This record gives sequence, structure tokens and C-alpha cells, in this order.
Amino acid sequence: MIAALAGGVGGARLSRGLAALLGDHLSVIVNTGDDFEHLGLPISPDLDTVTYTLAGRANPETGWGVAGDTWNFMAQLRDLGGPDWFLLGDRDLATHLLRREWLSRGDSLTQVTHRLAQRYGIASRILPMSDDIVRTRVQTKEGLLDFQDYFVRRRCDVVISDLQFDGASSARVPVAVAGAIAEAKAIVFCPSNPYVSIDPILAVGDMHAHLMAARAPRVAVSPIIGGAAVKGPAAKMMRELGHASSSLTVAEKYRGLLHGLVIDNADAPLAPAIEACGMAVLITDTLMRNAEDSERLAATVLRFAESLPIDG
Amino acid sequence: MIAALAGGVGGARLSRGLAALLGDHLSVIVNTGDDFEHLGLPISPDLDTVTYTLAGRANPETGWGVAGDTWNFMAQLRDLGGPDWFLLGDRDLATHLLRREWLSRGDSLTQVTHRLAQRYGIASRILPMSDDIVRTRVQTKEGLLDFQDYFVRRRCDVVISDLQFDGASSARVPVAVAGAIAEAKAIVFCPSNPYVSIDPILAVGDMHAHLMAARAPRVAVSPIIGGAAVKGPAAKMMRELGHASSSLTVAEKYRGLLHGLVIDNADAPLAPAIEACGMAVLITDTLMRNAEDSERLAATVLRFAESLPIDG
Repeated sequence: MIAALAGGVGGARLSRGLAALLGDHLSVIVNTGDDFEHLGLPISPDLDTVTYTLAGRANPETGWGVAGDTWNFMAQLRDLGGPDWFLLGDRDLATHLLRREWLSRGDSLTQVTHRLAQRYGIASRILPMSDDIVRTRVQTKEGLLDFQDYFVRRRCDVVISDLQFDGASSARVPVAVAGAIAEAKAIVFCPSNPYVSIDPILAVGDMHAHLMAARAPRVAVSPIIGGAAVKGPAAKMMRELGHASSSLTVAEKYRGLLHGLVIDNADAPLAPAIEACGMAVLITDTLMRNAEDSERLAATVLRFAESLPIDG
Repeated sequence: MIAALAGGVGGARLSRGLAALLGDHLSVIVNTGDDFEHLGLPISPDLDTVTYTLAGRANPETGWGVAGDTWNFMAQLRDLGGPDWFLLGDRDLATHLLRREWLSRGDSLTQVTHRLAQRYGIASRILPMSDDIVRTRVQTKEGLLDFQDYFVRRRCDVVISDLQFDGASSARVPVAVAGAIAEAKAIVFCPSNPYVSIDPILAVGDMHAHLMAARAPRVAVSPIIGGAAVKGPAAKMMRELGHASSSLTVAEKYRGLLHGLVIDNADAPLAPAIEACGMAVLITDTLMRNAEDSERLAATVLRFAESLPIDG
């Protein structure tokens, strides 16, 4: 059994590679700090990105939503003067309406996510980081913004100074997540944004303690390649928070938590400094352009994890 | 000012003719007994049929939904094993989600319906019969069925013995409806199903008293032509409830309430019997195949109403 921690696109892409190799021997623990309610619908962007990606249904152009989706709902909503800053595809709506229906019956987000994954034909387990509500908020000079407000409506065009995860400390780690961590032979931090994808997961209740107690190597794949993020605002956030946009910043951030970090060939010169943070380094091609890349990187990461002495 | 009472397709078609003649001098009071919640969305089939028809957006093939709508949401919902017995078009969903959003903010159905009508560019006032919940249920030999269960899921394929309008007696007539009735120079009962479109309206609180107190002629257009309903189960229901499927049954049903009944040329021989029910009769072509038919019939009905002595 392998456990992975994932947020958005990068997380979903490595998860897809891991899922191809591991099938039902993989649990992906997914950030829900980005979740919000929109038009009365419970939207879980990262859960959906992972689900659609593992189902082979993800839209490769956008990084979110369903491939080949149509926009007639949005067109009508716009005609009616409804809120059009957050895009909901016609097919994507089925996911949100079923999630709402099942949650309103009293099912947990864990149950709902599992049922959706099953219906999408996914063998791996997709697990929300918590069934309790956690909301990522971004401190900016214009004040505190809800995450989707910052990320989608404002397209990250405002400088951030801090992040907070409202509800995280009192949120509970679901039994399924605790079990996946305890059973794992390796724990993989996917190349997701450290600040808004991985940090919210680590902030949930006693998640950090569960991870530290696991008798398994913990390895991460850096989301930074040559000082830039492949997708999303990770590099920009690093700089705004006073750090270099570098895989070394990732290593410093995860110091004490990781046994190993996988970095891209472009960042090979950083290896000694990263090792000085107390973790092993593996240098490889970390860019995932397609399913083959994802699978190759996943295999490399798993071999790397296996090679690590976990008491080291 | 003219007030019309309407249910589904026949009601919407005459309303369209009246709206073309009267614009903002028309209030259409619409049945909400068919309303139900589906996938967490508040569905108001008759309000939507009237709204889409008056907006020129109705689907002429189906009698419900938006013209040219697409079905990608439904395809995905079906893939996911969701409930697919009630069809929701991609564009149609925008109406339901906005309605839900506005109702959840505390707006009344009257306010929500008015705002939707405005956004669809409709000058006439569309008024739900009540802001309180009324639910039409159908007594059958298989037990009591919710209306949409009977109408959509079962396609009316079970014999009915009675109807009930749960919540109607304690439901309140909205101020806007009471005002529209009080101000009306004529009250037009559209050619809607008497049992499941008009009866629920009449059953709301003191609606009947409001109508009887109006100093205006009350005229109906029979939904039956030559013993058959143009659309829907009205004729079938008449027979199952022990009546002839005939405009005379309509007259008997509305005895004491109507000053006049408009019947089709095909039913001319019934005129003396209908007059014996205490109402004037106008014989004309009542079939509405297109917008011109609707407008011509609307003009005929308004002239007929004007001609009637309301103390007679």
C-alpha cells in the first residue's frame, strides 16, 4: 500500500502514474482547503481534478474540468446575469449535483468521494484530507481573500503575505486517511503547491503526527523546476513570502518531515544544499507531459522511496 | 389589467397571446402544485413553461424546457448512475440553480419568479399561486403518488381516483396575486388541465374567495376539443374520475365560478348544455398551433370577457 498527498494538476498527474502502477494499492489523500460553495453546490476542485485525471477524463487544456465538456449552462447563466467568474461545465455539473445530493442525505465527503471514484471506474482510493470544513484564505495587502476569490476571480494578481487554513486545527483526520497512512509502505508528497495544496493537508488536526508516526519513507517530488512552477502560483507565492523560488525552498519547508526529495535535472546543482536539510535527493526528469511521463516518474519515486532507510 | 390562471403548455400558449396584446398589463397566476425538489434543485415546471414561452425560448417539440437545449449534464449524470427519469437540459439548469440560490438567500418564490422573468426580458408579470409549498398528489389504485412520479416517471399510466393538494388550504395567496385579481378587468382561465393546473390554484387559501370577489368577468377557455385534450392527461383524467371527456364536464366543474366559457368549433353542439350551467358560451377555433393562433384566441377571449355583464 502506498499513500500519496496531492492537490491540483501536478498532484493529479503523479497520482495518475502511481495509480497506473498500483491500482487499488494506492490511496491519494487530497487537499480540500480549496473547496467552496458556489450556487449552492459543494465544489471540491482538487478532489475533482484527481478524480477526473485518474478516470482519464481530465481536460488536458485547462487542468480542471472534464475533457470535451460543453458550456451551455454557463452561457445561459451569463444571459441571466448569474455569477460567471467560476466556470462549471455541463458534464462537470453532474459531479457537483450528485455530490450535493449525497452530502444532503448525510453521507460524508469521504463516502461521496469514494462513490464518485467508483462510478468513474477508478480502482485507487481517493480520500479527502478531512470530512470537516477547512477553508484556505490568503492574506493580501487588500485584506483576507477566500482562496477561489484569490485564485480564480483575481487570477492570483495580488501579492500575498500569509495563508491560513480556517477550521484545520479542529478538523479531524478521517479514519480512512489515518488507516492509509498507517498501512503505507511509502508516503509520496506529489509535486503540488506546498502552500495551498500540501500545507492545508498537513494542518488538519493530528495529520502531521500521523505522518511522523508512519513506519514508511516520506518522499516528495518538488513542484519547482529551474526556479519556476510547472503550473500555478507556487513560485510566485515563494517569492512573495520572502523565499527564493527554488527546490531548496521546498526542502527547507519540509525539513524534518521528508526522508527524500526528488528534483528535476535542471536543479541538480541544488542537491548538496538539499541534502544538508537532512534528506536524500534523487535527480531525474520531473516534468509530466503525458501519461507515460507520469508512470515513469511514479516508478522512479517508488524505487527511490524503497531505497531509503526510514530510521535515517 | 388582465389576470390569467395558467398551468402547463395550453396555459403558456394562451398566456403568450395575452402577453403579446397586453405586455405589462397582464399578470399570469401560475400553478405550483407540480413543483418538487430534484437533486436539491427547486423545480417549478409550470412557472418555467410559462416563463420560457413568454420569453420565446420554449422548446416547441417537448412543451417544456428551453429551445435548442443540450443534454450533456444528463449524459454524465446517467454515466454516474444518477437519477435520469427527470430531464434537465444544460441551459435549463441555469434557471434552477439561480432559483435555488435566490431562494436560499431568503427571497420568496414570487420575487425569484419576477426576477427570472425580467432577466428573460418578459414585460408581463408571472406570479406563482403561492409562496408556500403546495404539492399535488394523485390517488391511484397503487397508492398515493407524487405528481411528478405519476406524470413523468409513470407517464400517467395508472388509473387515478382522486387528487389532493397538500398544503393548499393553509397556503397563503401572495399579495401580488390578490392585487392582480382585485385590479383585473377580466380574469381568464387558460386552457390548462382543470384537475392538476387550475384546481390547485383554486385550492390555495382564500384564492376562491378572491376570485369570487373580483368585479370582473371570469372566462375560461376549455382545454378539451372534440372530447380530447390537445396535450396532457386532462381527457384521460376526466374519464377516470367518472366524467365524460367533454367541454361540458369543464362547464359543470366551473359552475358558479365562470361567467363565460370559450369552446372549440368542434364542440358547438354542447353550447346549449353549457349555457344551462349558467354561463355564456363563445364558439371559435381554440387550437393554438403557433404564436398567431395564440394572439388571435387571446383577442377573441378578451372581447368575449368585455361583452359579459358581470352581475349576470
